[in-house]
Amino acid sequence: MRATLLYKAGDVRVENVDDPKIQQPTDAVVRIVLASICGSDLWPYKSQPPTDNPRHMGHEFIGVVEETGPEVTGVKPGDLAVAPFVYADNTCEYCREGLQTSCPHAGQWGVNGVDGGQGQAARVPYADGTLVKLPVTEDSGLLPDLLTLSDVLCTGYHAAHTAGVRPGDSVTVIGDGAVGLSAVIAAKLLGAERIILMGRHDQRTALGREFGATDIIAGRGEDGVAAVRELTGGSGTRRVLECVGLKDALVQGIGVVRAGGVISRVGAPQYPEVPFGFPEFMRNITLTGGVAPARAYMETLMPHVLDGEIHPGRVFDRLVDLEEVPEGYRLMNNRESLKVLVRP
Amino acid sequence: MRATLLYKAGDVRVENVDDPKIQQPTDAVVRIVLASICGSDLWPYKSQPPTDNPRHMGHEFIGVVEETGPEVTGVKPGDLAVAPFVYADNTCEYCREGLQTSCPHAGQWGVNGVDGGQGQAARVPYADGTLVKLPVTEDSGLLPDLLTLSDVLCTGYHAAHTAGVRPGDSVTVIGDGAVGLSAVIAAKLLGAERIILMGRHDQRTALGREFGATDIIAGRGEDGVAAVRELTGGSGTRRVLECVGLKDALVQGIGVVRAGGVISRVGAPQYPEVPFGFPEFMRNITLTGGVAPARAYMETLMPHVLDGEIHPGRVFDRLVDLEEVPEGYRLMNNRESLKVLVRP
Repeated sequence: MRATLLYKAGDVRVENVDDPKIQQPTDAVVRIVLASICGSDLWPYKSQPPTDNPRHMGHEFIGVVEETGPEVTGVKPGDLAVAPFVYADNTCEYCREGLQTSCPHAGQWGVNGVDGGQGQAARVPYADGTLVKLPVTEDSGLLPDLLTLSDVLCTGYHAAHTAGVRPGDSVTVIGDGAVGLSAVIAAKLLGAERIILMGRHDQRTALGREFGATDIIAGRGEDGVAAVRELTGGSGTRRVLECVGLKDALVQGIGVVRAGGVISRVGAPQYPEVPFGFPEFMRNITLTGGVAPARAYMETLMPHVLDGEIHPGRVFDRLVDLEEVPEGYRLMNNRESLKVLVRP
Repeated sequence: MRATLLYKAGDVRVENVDDPKIQQPTDAVVRIVLASICGSDLWPYKSQPPTDNPRHMGHEFIGVVEETGPEVTGVKPGDLAVAPFVYADNTCEYCREGLQTSCPHAGQWGVNGVDGGQGQAARVPYADGTLVKLPVTEDSGLLPDLLTLSDVLCTGYHAAHTAGVRPGDSVTVIGDGAVGLSAVIAAKLLGAERIILMGRHDQRTALGREFGATDIIAGRGEDGVAAVRELTGGSGTRRVLECVGLKDALVQGIGVVRAGGVISRVGAPQYPEVPFGFPEFMRNITLTGGVAPARAYMETLMPHVLDGEIHPGRVFDRLVDLEEVPEGYRLMNNRESLKVLVRP
């Protein structure tokens, strides 16, 4: 089959690889019908040292089950299903409490002999725990919206959920990428009254406004903090959703959060330490969040997609076929595209 | 009157100062009947540069109201009352949500013309908000227990409360000082089933065991982390109460917390940054806590003291009079005393 491989920073190729096969009795094999490129794919795309053992790329996909191992009972050939960006057994102690990313069987797509999502097919470990059936057909117009359940929508929701967003809350969302925009959707779903989106890309913040942002702040750093404080009577917002992963964004979050408030970070941290000393202690700031256990939220969020209440798939602004995936990376890396959809 | 002044590191003196007077209509003046030295008094005691404008020391005291300003209605002369270590109006938006330390009128004892608690008397700003009446007389044997409401008991409770300790939880308490031991009391009050106390001072950890610790770990750093992990089947505890304030203690907390767990810090941070990058993100660790709004917890905790369910005053192992306060500092700084009670 054809699949996407990363050889080194900037060098992503679509090549022939072995077809996936059932290896464990809990595996399934799916034919991928829709996939996408994630902002987090860009980190290795920017930084990967040259390797002879290229990483298989992609962790967001919807597929049709083609074959299942003998222990798989939850899906059967022909089922259309979406997978979260971390696979897991969904039965262990961690999974039962909604922390599938800490499941002892959790794993990432594209490494350790597991396929990536940007290919024609994939072997799915722990298929019963990992795959979530979709009640639509593969030609449904809802597929892009449903695909966001694999990562960005659930990641945005994780930010809002762990920040404790409640009806009437004021929330600042830092970052106008696909996760930040999804966090706006999530904050609104949870009843936030005021949603301040910090971002400087007009098209993206315009979409954020359609998703529910009530205020847009283009300023960054001290200017951005001052602008949010001015909007909030000087105090900042109770909840801050940090959807970037850079230290500057986190520092900005500390600047805009109200005393006693919560910063939830869902952008993979590109920093080892955070400034969280005496001033933050005196203000009783909480820092929470982390990698999103997307699987925990998929059943909660799917009905909102199916009934058309939310349209998270609007974050996709380009569609490529599999051979065009390298061009998709280039477009996203150059910010010529917000998020790229891949139809293999 | 006589009061305690800090001139420079190691140089604390009891001297004559002006008697307190009502300055604002919301002030009261109290005659102090019992005070104490706090672990946090030792930070300036260790580090204060020489000054001609010495700091008035002490922020934990019980006193008898002697005089009140014309706007004070909640206490009257003759009332016995305890004060939290931060005064506040207790009526504003922050106070109403239990964050009195962020009250716009909040302030610290001993600075900006406000008396310290280690003296014969003190002017109490915002007396209605600050003072909590005690339903005992000044010769009550419960006074040392009730004095802990001013700081250590409430600080330990803040750690347990913000960490979200619930019935059945497993909790690690880092630090066997008076706050750590108070955190043990608080974790038990909130129903923790397993309370692992990390400390290396036998007398203190023995008291911790009497307060409710189920396990004592004397090891520190990697050894201590390994020991807690061994006790918990490899996973660590869901709640960690960091009661020291040093970076090593926080790192230890990160080491012993379970994935998805919470570290609450109540030791004033002696560090500007914390290691809270990708590994902590992948484990969804929450960092919370901060300076304790003691005032928020005093009414909740007082009944447990009055009915004898808890005996937090057992953290006091020395009693000095006012002129002996410098010796009290020496004893605590040399770890010859856990916590010193001052009877002016």
